Amino acid sequence: MTGTIEIRAPYLMFLGDVHDQLAAKTATGVVHWRRDDCIGQVRFADCKADLGLSDMTIAEGRAAGAATLVIGAVNPGGVLPDHWVSAIVEALESGMDVASGLHMRLTTQPAVAAAAARTGRSLFDVRHAPAGTLPTGKGTRRPGKRLLTVGTDCSVGKMYTSLAIAAEMKARGWKADFRATGQTGIFIAGSGISVDAVVADFISGASELLGPANDPDHWDVMEGQGSLFHPSFAGVTMGLIHGSQPDALVLCHEPTRRKMRNVEHPIPPIDACIRWHVEAATLTNPDARCIGIAVNTSALSEAAAADCLKQLSDQHGLPAVDPVRTGVAALVDALA
Amino acid sequence: MTGTIEIRAPYLMFLGDVHDQLAAKTATGVVHWRRDDCIGQVRFADCKADLGLSDMTIAEGRAAGAATLVIGAVNPGGVLPDHWVSAIVEALESGMDVASGLHMRLTTQPAVAAAAARTGRSLFDVRHAPAGTLPTGKGTRRPGKRLLTVGTDCSVGKMYTSLAIAAEMKARGWKADFRATGQTGIFIAGSGISVDAVVADFISGASELLGPANDPDHWDVMEGQGSLFHPSFAGVTMGLIHGSQPDALVLCHEPTRRKMRNVEHPIPPIDACIRWHVEAATLTNPDARCIGIAVNTSALSEAAAADCLKQLSDQHGLPAVDPVRTGVAALVDALA
Repeated sequence: MTGTIEIRAPYLMFLGDVHDQLAAKTATGVVHWRRDDCIGQVRFADCKADLGLSDMTIAEGRAAGAATLVIGAVNPGGVLPDHWVSAIVEALESGMDVASGLHMRLTTQPAVAAAAARTGRSLFDVRHAPAGTLPTGKGTRRPGKRLLTVGTDCSVGKMYTSLAIAAEMKARGWKADFRATGQTGIFIAGSGISVDAVVADFISGASELLGPANDPDHWDVMEGQGSLFHPSFAGVTMGLIHGSQPDALVLCHEPTRRKMRNVEHPIPPIDACIRWHVEAATLTNPDARCIGIAVNTSALSEAAAADCLKQLSDQHGLPAVDPVRTGVAALVDALA
Repeated sequence: MTGTIEIRAPYLMFLGDVHDQLAAKTATGVVHWRRDDCIGQVRFADCKADLGLSDMTIAEGRAAGAATLVIGAVNPGGVLPDHWVSAIVEALESGMDVASGLHMRLTTQPAVAAAAARTGRSLFDVRHAPAGTLPTGKGTRRPGKRLLTVGTDCSVGKMYTSLAIAAEMKARGWKADFRATGQTGIFIAGSGISVDAVVADFISGASELLGPANDPDHWDVMEGQGSLFHPSFAGVTMGLIHGSQPDALVLCHEPTRRKMRNVEHPIPPIDACIRWHVEAATLTNPDARCIGIAVNTSALSEAAAADCLKQLSDQHGLPAVDPVRTGVAALVDALA
């Protein structure tokens, strides 16, 4: 796909010597959704994270068929530690590409950049916009169907819900693709654009690229970002909605949260959230509608979760699911 | 102001050899609003634009006191032509800074970058985000009052209206500052951030920087960008609204336009446009309201313009002005 990153599987997962499991959160997501494509993990002696994969050296991973070394661990400050460089250079020299979710770009580390140039291998910095020029959004309708996850806040399960919906569609024999808009999603999909990393003028243009013209019965399931009610990131959400031209929106929600992430603003009411996201979507797709609610009930007991889903479904007249607890079949049913 | 560009006046306006007056549109705007700070113009023999300033060489401009050479002309493709480089280097060597509105960065032209390093002078690429790290928006209320211009489309007079309102406030002895969010505005203000050029995650954060905490009776008049109804740029508008935390919105409109700029979408209805922009603004300022309409009636006869303003005012219960034909006193009255 022009303008987007394309990462080759299988992956060798690099954890280095991160201090805890949380630092490997991205890698954990990749292993959850792409288990068969994750050949092994590279861990230094004092690494405190574990992906449940076979421990391998770079050479062993390459011999087992790894095409890309994936740096799915975060370091304080997002920098690439000097003592990780030799392993990355070794991966490039063995014939692998390297993909990183760190803030610091691989391309700015001289030894890594030199090794990539010498070997002709590719470096992917998935937190950053792909090199080259993005178009501005045009808002022109294109064939194919699109579903976009939106949220009452950041970090409420939009990526997980999108992946679960795409998987459910494929299991039913539908034509469907998950379209990644953030770093973990890009590792999982093997392609995508971090839409929050593009220059502001190109948010909707990048989003149009992510879900290009397709068969009339094909679904792009687009990973949402932010929320129209989040004072830090609503601009990203707005551009993503306009560029996605969603036929269907799924609202993602975490029912125990009281404030939006990293700010003091309250979680918006569900009905206002649905109304606003749908109204925004109608600018580029007059038929846009919200088809369901996906709730992360992990903080609730089984009984409380069931009550919560029933209440939300009754109040808003929409199917309400927890993608982990109940699966997303009810959401896909609503599209059938 | 941290994170923003600061350009020193007086200016020597550089036009090079642009082929028509339209290519000098940015410079024309600067001269209109900062006439006393524009010392002269530098034009090559075959230049087809004229700002009505004294023609000068670089050396004459410097001798007359110019602190910054302003490249307010656009070239096809936005590139810096090779035959402009020697004049820019001469300006740096004479002791001037250089500010450019071209797409191509001055800092990427080797001879220009070397001359800036050698002389210790500054290069300003006002179309681009300032170097260094911007914060994400927090949405926390801050003292001082803010007015933001919004629009039914791009290029409907938001910058002109903002400048006219700030000038009217100052003429009344109010504490007021125009805050620039685009290239022409930045040249005029001497500072600002091109909010459409920042990384998407930082739109509202940049907008918060642009209108920092101030005296409770001080007005920041913020230059608007795009429109919530424009499928290319609504994300920029949304982040700018949230970061500005406007107490007052002024809707700018061009009554003869039928489609939004560069896309096929119709101009949105005025009432929907007011409602949406105000609703978006209430996220970070619950007291936000629209206080008037500013109309660019330049395509209408005097009589038709008067009719148009009266009709808009009656329909929406708000003062409606043309900043050029009627001035903006009625808008500032609405704030008093």
